Amino acid sequence: MTSKDKRIQPRTLKGFRDYLPQAMLAREDLIAKARSVYRSYGFSPIDTPALEYEEILTGKGGEESDKQMYRFTDNGGRQVAMRFDLTIPLARFAAQHIGELGKPFKRYHIGPVWRGENTQRGRYREFMQCDFDTIGTEDVSADVETALVIHDLLQTIDAGEFQIHMNNRLVLTGMLERLDLLECQVPVLRALDKLAKIGPDKVVDEMVRVAGASETQAREVLKLAAVGGDCESVLGELAPLVGGSEQGERGLERLTQLVECLRAVDIAPERYSIDLSIARGLDYYTGAIFETFLADLPGIGSVCSGGRYDDLAALYTKEQLPGIGASLGLDRLLAALEELGRVEVRSTPANVFVTRFSKGRLTDYLELCGALRRAGFDVELYPEERKLGPQLKHADRRGYRCAVILGDDEWTGSKCLLKDLQTGKSEELALSSDLGALIEALNSLLGPT
Amino acid sequence: MTSKDKRIQPRTLKGFRDYLPQAMLAREDLIAKARSVYRSYGFSPIDTPALEYEEILTGKGGEESDKQMYRFTDNGGRQVAMRFDLTIPLARFAAQHIGELGKPFKRYHIGPVWRGENTQRGRYREFMQCDFDTIGTEDVSADVETALVIHDLLQTIDAGEFQIHMNNRLVLTGMLERLDLLECQVPVLRALDKLAKIGPDKVVDEMVRVAGASETQAREVLKLAAVGGDCESVLGELAPLVGGSEQGERGLERLTQLVECLRAVDIAPERYSIDLSIARGLDYYTGAIFETFLADLPGIGSVCSGGRYDDLAALYTKEQLPGIGASLGLDRLLAALEELGRVEVRSTPANVFVTRFSKGRLTDYLELCGALRRAGFDVELYPEERKLGPQLKHADRRGYRCAVILGDDEWTGSKCLLKDLQTGKSEELALSSDLGALIEALNSLLGPT
Repeated sequence: MTSKDKRIQPRTLKGFRDYLPQAMLAREDLIAKARSVYRSYGFSPIDTPALEYEEILTGKGGEESDKQMYRFTDNGGRQVAMRFDLTIPLARFAAQHIGELGKPFKRYHIGPVWRGENTQRGRYREFMQCDFDTIGTEDVSADVETALVIHDLLQTIDAGEFQIHMNNRLVLTGMLERLDLLECQVPVLRALDKLAKIGPDKVVDEMVRVAGASETQAREVLKLAAVGGDCESVLGELAPLVGGSEQGERGLERLTQLVECLRAVDIAPERYSIDLSIARGLDYYTGAIFETFLADLPGIGSVCSGGRYDDLAALYTKEQLPGIGASLGLDRLLAALEELGRVEVRSTPANVFVTRFSKGRLTDYLELCGALRRAGFDVELYPEERKLGPQLKHADRRGYRCAVILGDDEWTGSKCLLKDLQTGKSEELALSSDLGALIEALNSLLGPT
Repeated sequence: MTSKDKRIQPRTLKGFRDYLPQAMLAREDLIAKARSVYRSYGFSPIDTPALEYEEILTGKGGEESDKQMYRFTDNGGRQVAMRFDLTIPLARFAAQHIGELGKPFKRYHIGPVWRGENTQRGRYREFMQCDFDTIGTEDVSADVETALVIHDLLQTIDAGEFQIHMNNRLVLTGMLERLDLLECQVPVLRALDKLAKIGPDKVVDEMVRVAGASETQAREVLKLAAVGGDCESVLGELAPLVGGSEQGERGLERLTQLVECLRAVDIAPERYSIDLSIARGLDYYTGAIFETFLADLPGIGSVCSGGRYDDLAALYTKEQLPGIGASLGLDRLLAALEELGRVEVRSTPANVFVTRFSKGRLTDYLELCGALRRAGFDVELYPEERKLGPQLKHADRRGYRCAVILGDDEWTGSKCLLKDLQTGKSEELALSSDLGALIEALNSLLGPT
């Protein structure tokens, strides 16, 4: 026994959290759905280490990422750091293995990343990323497939209505070229990206102050970004706005193809739109850009974002690896599902609870549970012989759908009680050697397993 | 473009590794199987942070673990460390949340852990653990269930024949008490644990040198540990060896109950045995002990080990939390499955590959793939228009089972070729609007989805 004053306070680090069963079940469910969608398009899973050489990670995500990185010297004197996203590790991975992998290469990667962020914004310092990317092709079909995967993800996750906002960085470039703002496009687009967050006046202010645009130019950019309506009319309005700019015309062509393909494969038109205001500040996007918003919770921001980049792994290899991909915001989605009341209130993955209170009958209970598992049910047997009340409370609290109740009378009479824990109703069933009646009743209560 | 001399060599840290698709598919498959077994017994998933306060982790796994731990000072000046197993975090987690969780509490936890081990022994510094535990009950049913879960895991994973070796720490204590070795049981059992690795003479030597036993006593321990045969005869021989020792008799009773239950629920007798030589040196085991060996690869050591402990979280709470659990050696099992040739040679999770080489037909290809996905198939569409040869090579290399081939002639004639990539045989099929013939052929080739 440890004495009280030797005891250590059990606590997690600031910005870190435990997943208790209810939250973890929801997370596992979300990941399983994402995985099945990725696999249905032929994306393959990979994994990379949590720790990398510091030089691999620094300077790639900008100053902010560098500051937030967990880095230290390991016991062998190496400068190491914990990954802060899954994109830089993908770049390193691709540079290292592309010969073996072959091109094009499609991968998904689901795993934790770490950032020593300011936790006041409700952000965590450890969170899961869930990325998919197609590397080694510039074909527009990869743009379309990215949109289709996002569509299928959101549909499968069942977080209500959603809309994929699409843009093309080259269209933005074309518009800026016509406004004579090409030189300062990066700071201009960074400012534009904040539109939803800080409003038009502050965006104009930042474009003038930081990017060096005139106020007239800045207002013009905002006007262009506000072009709205259905995809066809936006595409129509865009033609003159980018005309004459080679990049702008190329971007418009790609955006037009993307929209045509989505329409051709019957994606509902309300599920996607062209949104010229999304720029995704990150300098490396060079083509299609995606963000995804939930109709019921637009305020939480994009739940699936990404885009096309020209040269993923330039820092590590001379081989040019263009690609496109997006990242599903697992933690944000989980929070959203919870807020929308779409997370099941249960802390057990199993549906069937078997009570235990006949003395000396453990093997009978074990046999019963084994037979139910072989019939496809997930079953918990209460591990102790106790009164019925506390056992049912245990089952109820965990969200079991039903309880199979057997005491001495039931064993002797070859019968059992099946209690529906939602309605509170019980049903007496005969207990034949093949458990036919019980299995049938469970199937009708729980649906086919 | 990054110039050559600015480029960073893409590499992983010593002792760390990337998972390429083939290995990762095998790992995902193994984890999915483990998860389904855990869930079928009502174990719930949890997760804990990779980083903990250093004080939570140090001194719990012994000197060796402390030395191997990755620890550092974070940006906020906190002493932090990366978890080196999932047991200490479980202890901290249970102490912190048991009120909310309720007892008994059954959890599984699958995640990476980090140890700066000597990599020369072929060990990795980052590896996955896959644990399950039942906390808050001393009932023998939890012992039985632990054995049953191990059994179901190994059966589901399909790594060939296996045997669960079982012992009870109290039986060992009883035998040592009769030999007057109770005072030095920990170093004696630590030495005994090495029997398979270093042989009897060195074990005797260590018992004498380190534990302070006489050579006669040490030889006697080895003789006891060698008691073999079927479970019934071992249990019979044990009675006199522990008789008179209260703890020994209690251990024998528990071991007997365990064996009786396994027999009663028809676990094949060759799947388990009593092995008095396994002690699992760790001081904290206090009852049942389990190790599991593959018949085809006994040399790789135990692939699933665990046991019963009295007081998991004593360092963090005054509440006594007895429990029992085991850990599935995922990495060891993956290596074993590979060595046994039971890992599929493929690097794609999808089965159906669709070639693409008719110009201007992208939407037709996309529609076809969408329809096949809705019919339940996982489908990759080659992202570029290319000659057939390189596309089929791409599909072959990744282990696709079949390819659907459509060129201009096929589109015009409303037909397609289905090529079996294993046999090389092709079949021409009509392409009706509901894809009936193609779906039927795919079903018969791939089995029902």
